[in-house]
Amino acid sequence: MTGFVSFVSSGPGDPDLLTVKAVDRLQKAEVILFDDLSAGPILEHAQPDADLIGVGKRAGRASPKQDHVSRVLVDHAEAGLRVVRLKSGDSGMFGRLEEEITALQAAGIPFEIIPGVTSASAAAATAGIPLTRRLSARRVQFITGADVTGALPPDVNMAALADPLATTVIYMGKRTFPGLAARLIEHGLPGDTPAMLAEAVSTPDEKLHRFTIATLAEHLDSTSSSTPALIFYGPLAELNG
Amino acid sequence: MTGFVSFVSSGPGDPDLLTVKAVDRLQKAEVILFDDLSAGPILEHAQPDADLIGVGKRAGRASPKQDHVSRVLVDHAEAGLRVVRLKSGDSGMFGRLEEEITALQAAGIPFEIIPGVTSASAAAATAGIPLTRRLSARRVQFITGADVTGALPPDVNMAALADPLATTVIYMGKRTFPGLAARLIEHGLPGDTPAMLAEAVSTPDEKLHRFTIATLAEHLDSTSSSTPALIFYGPLAELNG
Repeated sequence: MTGFVSFVSSGPGDPDLLTVKAVDRLQKAEVILFDDLSAGPILEHAQPDADLIGVGKRAGRASPKQDHVSRVLVDHAEAGLRVVRLKSGDSGMFGRLEEEITALQAAGIPFEIIPGVTSASAAAATAGIPLTRRLSARRVQFITGADVTGALPPDVNMAALADPLATTVIYMGKRTFPGLAARLIEHGLPGDTPAMLAEAVSTPDEKLHRFTIATLAEHLDSTSSSTPALIFYGPLAELNG
Repeated sequence: MTGFVSFVSSGPGDPDLLTVKAVDRLQKAEVILFDDLSAGPILEHAQPDADLIGVGKRAGRASPKQDHVSRVLVDHAEAGLRVVRLKSGDSGMFGRLEEEITALQAAGIPFEIIPGVTSASAAAATAGIPLTRRLSARRVQFITGADVTGALPPDVNMAALADPLATTVIYMGKRTFPGLAARLIEHGLPGDTPAMLAEAVSTPDEKLHRFTIATLAEHLDSTSSSTPALIFYGPLAELNG
C-alpha cells in the first residue's frame, strides 16, 4: 500500500496563520518532515505519536541535503504512511518544491499541495503596506536574493527591479542587497526609494524597520545577522493601524 | 466607545483556506462587510446575530461605490462595533485596501490587517505549478490586467512582463490579455510560452486549462465569460499530483 504526501504550507511562522486545511493535515499526519524555519508551535498540532523529523534545510544556504530530504520523503511514503512535508510560507514560493515532487513522481507516490500565506503578505499586513497600490504600484514582484551559491542570481532583470512603479520583495536577500542597491541606483531608481527590513516575520521576535534603499544598504553592510528576513522596496505606503 | 475593524483576507474561496486567525475574527464579528467574490460558505463562520452586509463591489469593474464602502465601514466602527471587512484572496494584493484604511485613519478608528492565501498560490498548488523554480523562474510577479477603466494599466513595464525567466500572474486580465499577448510577442517572448487560465479558483466550479500565450489569446478573443480568473504564463512546470 502506497502512502500519501501532503506538502503543507505553514505560513510565515505564527500558528494562527496556518490555514484550516493545513491544521487538518498536521493533525492526521503519521510523519511530519520539517525544516528549522517552520518548526515550533506549528508542530503542536501533530498527534502525540506522530514521527517528527527535522530535515534541517535552512533558507538561503547551500543545501547539499536536498537529495537526502527527497529520499526520506519517498521512504516514508513507500512504507504506506500519511506524510506531511511542512514548508515555510507558501510552498510554491521559493520552497524548492519541484525537486521533492519530481522524486515522488519517479516513485509513483500521490501527493497534494496545500497553499499558504507567504511571508511577504504577513509582513506587509503588520506594517500597513498593501503589496499593490491602485495608481503607484500595480505590479508586485518577489525575487530571491541568493542562488544556491549564496550570490545574487546572475539573471536578475534590472529593468524589472529598478521600476519605481512596482513593489519588490526580496526573500533571503540580506547579504546581497548592498550590491543590488548600488545597481538599482545605477539603473535610475532613486536612492531615497522607501525600503523596509522585516525580520522574523510573524514570530514573537518580529522586527520591522523602515529605511530607504540607500540607508538599508548601508545598514546591512555594517551589520551581520542570520535572522531570516525579507526586504521590501518601492512606493511603500505607511498605513500602520 | 470606538469600535475596531479587522481586514480579514478570506483566501481564494475554499473556506478551508481561511487562516485560523481569520476564522476567529469572523466568529467574533458583530458586523461583516463582504464583496460578492468572497461570500458564500465563508460567512457560515459568523455568529447567528451578526450583521452581514454585502457591499457588492466586484473585482475588475469600475467601482463608483468605493466611497460608500468606506462610509459604511466608518459608520459601523463609530457605533462601537467589532467589524470585519472581508477581502478576497490576500487583502494586500489588488484589494483596494488603502482607500478604506485612509478613511479609517481620518476617523481615528483602530484596525488590523490579517493576511491570507492569494488566489495565485491556490491555483498554482492545484495545478502543480510552483510559482518560482530554482533555475528557470527566480522571479514571480503579479499584475492587474485592468485599471479602474477596465483597460490594461498604461504604465505596464514590458521589459518586466516579457521576461522568459519569470512567472507572471495576471489578476482580472481576461479581457485585456489578447492585446497584452501581442505586445509580449512583439517584445520577444515566444508565442509558445506556456500559459494557464484558472477560473473560479478553489471553488467547486474551478477550471484550470493549459494553453500557450498565443493560444490563450485566441481563446479569450473568441469567448466571453465573467467568471473571475487568473492568467499564468512563463516557464510553468507540469507537476500534477
